[in-house]
Parts: sequence; C-alpha cells; structure tokens
Amino acid sequence: MYDLNQSLFLRALRRQPVERTPVWIMRQAGRYLPEYRKTREQAGDFLSLCKNPELACEVTLQPLRRFQLDAAILFSDILTIPDAMGLGLYFAEGEGPCFTNPVQDVKAINDLIIPDADSLDYVMKAAKLIRQEMPQHLPLIGFAGSPWTLACYMVEGKSSRDFKRILKLVYTEYEAAHMLLNKLAISVSDYLLEQIKAGVNAVMIFDTWGGILTPEHYQNFSLHYMQQIITRIKAQYADIPIILFTKGGGQWLEHMAATGCEALGVDWTCDLQSARKRVGDKVALQGNLDPAVLLSSEQSIRKQVEKVLASFGHGSGHVFNLGHGITPDVPPEHVAVMIDAINEFSPQYHSR
Amino acid sequence: MYDLNQSLFLRALRRQPVERTPVWIMRQAGRYLPEYRKTREQAGDFLSLCKNPELACEVTLQPLRRFQLDAAILFSDILTIPDAMGLGLYFAEGEGPCFTNPVQDVKAINDLIIPDADSLDYVMKAAKLIRQEMPQHLPLIGFAGSPWTLACYMVEGKSSRDFKRILKLVYTEYEAAHMLLNKLAISVSDYLLEQIKAGVNAVMIFDTWGGILTPEHYQNFSLHYMQQIITRIKAQYADIPIILFTKGGGQWLEHMAATGCEALGVDWTCDLQSARKRVGDKVALQGNLDPAVLLSSEQSIRKQVEKVLASFGHGSGHVFNLGHGITPDVPPEHVAVMIDAINEFSPQYHSR
Repeated sequence: MYDLNQSLFLRALRRQPVERTPVWIMRQAGRYLPEYRKTREQAGDFLSLCKNPELACEVTLQPLRRFQLDAAILFSDILTIPDAMGLGLYFAEGEGPCFTNPVQDVKAINDLIIPDADSLDYVMKAAKLIRQEMPQHLPLIGFAGSPWTLACYMVEGKSSRDFKRILKLVYTEYEAAHMLLNKLAISVSDYLLEQIKAGVNAVMIFDTWGGILTPEHYQNFSLHYMQQIITRIKAQYADIPIILFTKGGGQWLEHMAATGCEALGVDWTCDLQSARKRVGDKVALQGNLDPAVLLSSEQSIRKQVEKVLASFGHGSGHVFNLGHGITPDVPPEHVAVMIDAINEFSPQYHSR
Repeated sequence: MYDLNQSLFLRALRRQPVERTPVWIMRQAGRYLPEYRKTREQAGDFLSLCKNPELACEVTLQPLRRFQLDAAILFSDILTIPDAMGLGLYFAEGEGPCFTNPVQDVKAINDLIIPDADSLDYVMKAAKLIRQEMPQHLPLIGFAGSPWTLACYMVEGKSSRDFKRILKLVYTEYEAAHMLLNKLAISVSDYLLEQIKAGVNAVMIFDTWGGILTPEHYQNFSLHYMQQIITRIKAQYADIPIILFTKGGGQWLEHMAATGCEALGVDWTCDLQSARKRVGDKVALQGNLDPAVLLSSEQSIRKQVEKVLASFGHGSGHVFNLGHGITPDVPPEHVAVMIDAINEFSPQYHSR
C-alpha cells in the first residue's frame, strides 16, 4: 500500500522537504466544472448531491481527472451539522443556504441536540467510498465549519451582510451564545473524528465568519471553540494534520498558530512573507491566490502564481491554494494554467 | 468668533490634550432617527435629499439637537462624484446604490470626464448653509469616497459581494484601471478642496472596499491614490486635518499612517491598543465600537464603551466613533447611553 505520509500535501503540511509546492483548490469540485453541473442535475439539487454517497464520490473525483491536484476534499457542505440538529437546511436559488427552523431564542438553544452518528452517516459513507475509489497516492481532506460560523447561519437563518441577530445574542445573551457554541464544538469534534475513522487523511476547519468579530470576541467565541476541537482530535489522532482557516483573520495568525494545528489557511489579503515571519516555524501556510485572478488572462494568472510562490519563498511549509473558494464563472482551462505555473515555478523554491 | 481649533474634536485629531474623549458617529444623520425619516419623506428619496441644500442642512443638524456630539458631518453620499460624471446614480429600495450607466469597458474609462465645479455645487451650497446654521463651537466634517471605492461601484454598477468586474479589470487591464483611478483621484481632490473652501473644518476619506484587495493591490490601487489626494490637499490647506478610513484595513495601518494624514479610522476588528502601538505618535485614531453593540442593552453598551476607551488608554489622540456606520434599527436612546458613557468614563484617561 502507498504510504500517504510521503505525499507532497502531507509532507508540506508537516514542513518536511518537498520537490515542488503541492496544490489543491477550495471548492475544487464545483459549479465551474461542466461535469459537476451535469451530476448535480442528476441528483436534483445541491443537498441531494451531498446526501448521495455515490454522486458525492463522483463529483469529488471529477477535478482529479482533469487536473494534477495533490489532494481531494470530501464533497459536502459545512451546514450538514445544523441540518442534522433539525434546522431543516435548504438552498434557495441565488440566495445560498437557508434554514426552515433557525435558532431564534434561548429556549431553542437549550433544546438543541448533539446529532447522533446515524444522522450524518451519509457523509461517512461518502468519505469511505471516496477513499476507496480515489487514487491511492493522494490524501483525502475532511472538513467542517467552525462552531462560530455554524452559529452565524443557525441564528441568522441564512447568509447575512451584518449578522445582527447573532451579534445581538453575543452582546446580550452571553451565556446562551456560549452554550450554543459549546454544543457545536462537541458536534464538530464528533463529526471530524467520524470522518477520520472513515478514512480522511487531514481535516480543515472553515471559519468563514470569524473575521467579522472584535479581537476579543474572535478569541472567546470563535478561536476558543476551534481550540477545543483541535485538542479533542489531537488526543485521539495526533498524526492527522489540521488546517485552520479564518477568512479575514489576517490580524490573528499568531493566535491561530498557537492552537496546535499544523497549518493555517490564509486569504488573499495577507502577505505570505509577513505571515510566515509572524507564525515562525509553528505551522505551514495554505493559500493564497486571489480567486479573482482565475477570471483574468493566462499571462496574468502565471504572473500572480509566481508572486504567491515568491512571497512564501524558499523551503517547505507551503500548500498552494486560492485565498477563498473557486467561483462558478472560472473557465476550467484557467485552473490548468494555474497548476502548470505552480509546477513550472515552484521547484526552484525547494532546491537544496 | 469661536476658535474651532479649541474644539475637542480638532484637538484630539492633532493629539493635543483634551478633557474628555470627543465623539461623533458615522452616518449620525440617518434612518435610525425618526425626524430624519420624516425629512427624507418630504424630499421624496435619498438622492433628492442629498441634492436639496436646505433639507441636507436640516438632517445634518438633527443629531446635534438630540445628542451631545462633538462634530457634524456634511449630509451627502460618496457617489455624488460618479453621478456628476454622468453615470446616473439612483437608489433601488433595499438594494443600495445603482448606476444607470456603469463603466463597462476601457472606452468608457477613456471617455470619463472630471466633473466641473457646477455639477457638484449643490454639495457646496449645503456645506455653506450647514456651517452657517450649525453651532459655531462645533467643527463640520467634509468627506468623499476613496478613488478605489468609487471605482468599485462605477465598474460593478452597484454594491457587490465579490467585485469580480473591477478585479478582472485590475488583473487584465492594468493601465485602464490606473487611468480610472487617476481621474477619480483628481476629481476627489477637487471635490474636497471645494468643500474646504465652502467651510468644512476637517475631511474624511472613506475607503469602504480597500479591504478586499491583496496587500500589493491595496498599495497600488487604493492607498497610492489616497496619498495623491492627501498631498494635494496638504499643499493648499496644511491645517485641515484628514482622516483616512479603510474598512478591513487593519493589516495596513502603518502604511496608512505614513501618508501624512492626521488620523486613521479603525473598524471594530482592530484592537486600539495594538493599533496605537503600531502607528506610534504619527496619527490619532478614530473608532471603533462594534456597531452591533448599539443593538444590545444599556448595560452591554456601557461595558463595551468602557472597553474601547480602556483599549486606547491614557492620553489624547482618540476620537470615539463606531467601527462602521450606525444601522437603521438602532434605538436612538441607545446612542444617548453610549454618549453618556463616554462622558462618564473618558475624563479619567485625560487627567494629568
């Protein structure tokens, strides 16, 4: 059997020497691929696609067939947990995720249950199937939303510009907010541990909305609970690398690096060179090409890839990625240009 | 005549000793006030209100009648300049600003004209009238959007979540993007100089969308042009304080402080204590209560005000404000609670 510890992705996460910079793409199985759109149509809608292990496996593998990617990521959604808690997740066209039963008061928080393993079994079935079907030499990444990010959607009931409901809760019902986040931290930990049992080789925590908080609230309401999750995973699986990504969290990298995770995802507003200086040799860095670059020209993509590589500089500890998810309007051939450029330019940063 | 240089606001901007921390509120003349909603109804719509000097004066004065504020801000909109360039500004209910003729190609950028003074004369009329009608002992703040922020709206045609059009322009039509920003920097400078002639006592540049850029692009496409504006204003009016505010710009405070402006607006994701350490004695700081705090309780507002004051700490150089504009659903009595708390807690930070 292939030793996945020798994969470029896992070596880079552990800051071990690599020959070139590995790459994967957030939302690499997604709407920018015509084959994805076809499978999604077959499934009916996005959520049915997530809940169908065979089709979820199929879309997970699609980008690997097209591009020389160094990891796969489980096809799923961060909101499977609140859905399993009974909030009734659905996706309104053009509006993003919505809940039929958002969390609207303290009683609803009191009543929230930690999902049992059965209710999320479809995710584990997909993970097992993907691990079995995908190339043996590539790692599979599992993931979950951060407790804070899940709480944002659960309380707002949908995506929001100003997150007034959840912020009002934080400022007025401090204890209820902590109870909610605590329940979510337990649920996310359980969920990621199940994914690891099902075969994923690394996990990533997506903290999409941590960046809207004050520094104090980021520590207390977002990072604190991600720390709990990391501690619980590490207690059982010390060798599974954990990647922590707070969008808009560029001001807090030092704190994130102190959690014991292996790597930080960094968005495109961060300079990798200064990020690297700030976190020292504590963690690897994953990122951070501006997703909008993939809408530009071949020449521009090559130039910007080179800049990201040069910004991280010499040595291991860099996983190339976008600074956020790939958008539906990206031409797939632009992704190929990006990956070719990484393969062409990155070896020089790893020569002895 | 009252010497405005003795006002708390201007003294704090110049980091001269004050007895208490001065305060004003971004969007203090706005929809959270019932009297504003009444005047707006009288005007017909938001843009007609901006274009009517008497009514613009009336709404500017309204918050000063209710609250003990230390400055007024000219009632207007950042998009008056693109409107004067012929883009046809209108406000769709619930959608925010839109343009009938967005900038859709390089030819449109080539054809853009610098607005002449006549086309923005209604703003200067409002400024003169407000300066004449408002309390003599209070300063009047003029303002404009940053060239980058104006360009975002002009190219997108409206507010956006991902700013794909403008970013594509930046990555593929580099020179056209610079031409657009250059025209805007000239227009904004002209506009602010006219406001100063009309009687405003300080100016603020709102860079609402600088925070979506990579660090390199922030420097080249946003800060560079704000620097041009500051240089031009300072050449004619060395004594008029300039406040620079990039929302989401917490990572770049040092660069912003190096422009020669008097103060930085900081949003609520920044810690004032570390911001102050980073900018040293170069600039004053304005901010940064989380606007969501005003939706909470009296107790919570008082506590959070105390935290902001303590975070800045002892000495002058702090103008209290929110970290972003006040939202329409804030109960006006919560604003009074905030101001009372500032008056109660801040003198201790200014004692000898």
